Amino acid sequence: MAFDPASLRYDANGLIPAIAQDHVSGEVLMVAWMNAAAVTQTLETGRVTYWSRSRQSFWIKGESSGHVQKLVELRVDCDRDCLLLLVDQTGPACHTNRRSCFYTAVRAGEEVEILRPL
Amino acid sequence: MAFDPASLRYDANGLIPAIAQDHVSGEVLMVAWMNAAAVTQTLETGRVTYWSRSRQSFWIKGESSGHVQKLVELRVDCDRDCLLLLVDQTGPACHTNRRSCFYTAVRAGEEVEILRPL
Repeated sequence: MAFDPASLRYDANGLIPAIAQDHVSGEVLMVAWMNAAAVTQTLETGRVTYWSRSRQSFWIKGESSGHVQKLVELRVDCDRDCLLLLVDQTGPACHTNRRSCFYTAVRAGEEVEILRPL
Repeated sequence: MAFDPASLRYDANGLIPAIAQDHVSGEVLMVAWMNAAAVTQTLETGRVTYWSRSRQSFWIKGESSGHVQKLVELRVDCDRDCLLLLVDQTGPACHTNRRSCFYTAVRAGEEVEILRPL
C-alpha cells in the first residue's frame, strides 16, 4: 500500500510526535513534532524536517548547527499516531551538545546526568 | 537533585509522552502517555503504568494481558516534556501481539510490514 502522510493521526494542532533513533546503536536521540508537510518533506529530501512549535515553522534538523539527521527509515506505529525515525545523526542531536536529549536518569529517586556534552 | 514528577512539563491535558525501549536490545516498543500520578506509581511499583486516554484511567501495562513491563530505568529529556522508559518487556508490547508497535516501515513510498505477531 502506498504511504500517504494524510493517513496518519495528528493531534488537535495537526502534529504527530516523531522519535529519532540512531539506526546503528539503537540509542534514542530526541523527540520532536511533525505536521503532514514535514513528513512529506522528510521523505522527499531524506533530511529530517520537524515542525517547530515554538517558532511555528519548519525545522530542518541541522540546517544552522550542521548536526544533520539523514533519514534511514521511517516507521509508523499501530495507532498511526506516532513515528519512529531511524536516522544517521551527525554529532549531537541535543541543543545542549549532547548526543541524546535523554541525558538525565532517575536512580534511587535522584536525577543523575548520564551523558556529557560532546 | 531529588526527582519530582511535578517538575515535568505536561501538556494541556496533564499528560507527557513516554517511550518504552527494550533495555537490552534497544528496540523501541511503544509510546503511550502518563500523568504525574502514573509517573509516581511507575517509580514506586517498578511496573510501568500509563494513563489511558481512551478509558481515562490508569493502565498498568500487562495487568490483563500478562505482557508486563518492568521498569529498569526512567530517563527525562532536556525539555522535561518527554520520558524514555528502559523496560524489561514480557512478550509482545503491542495489542496486535507484535513485539513492537512500530511494525510498519515506509520503503520506496510503500508501507511494508516488518514484524509478525508472536
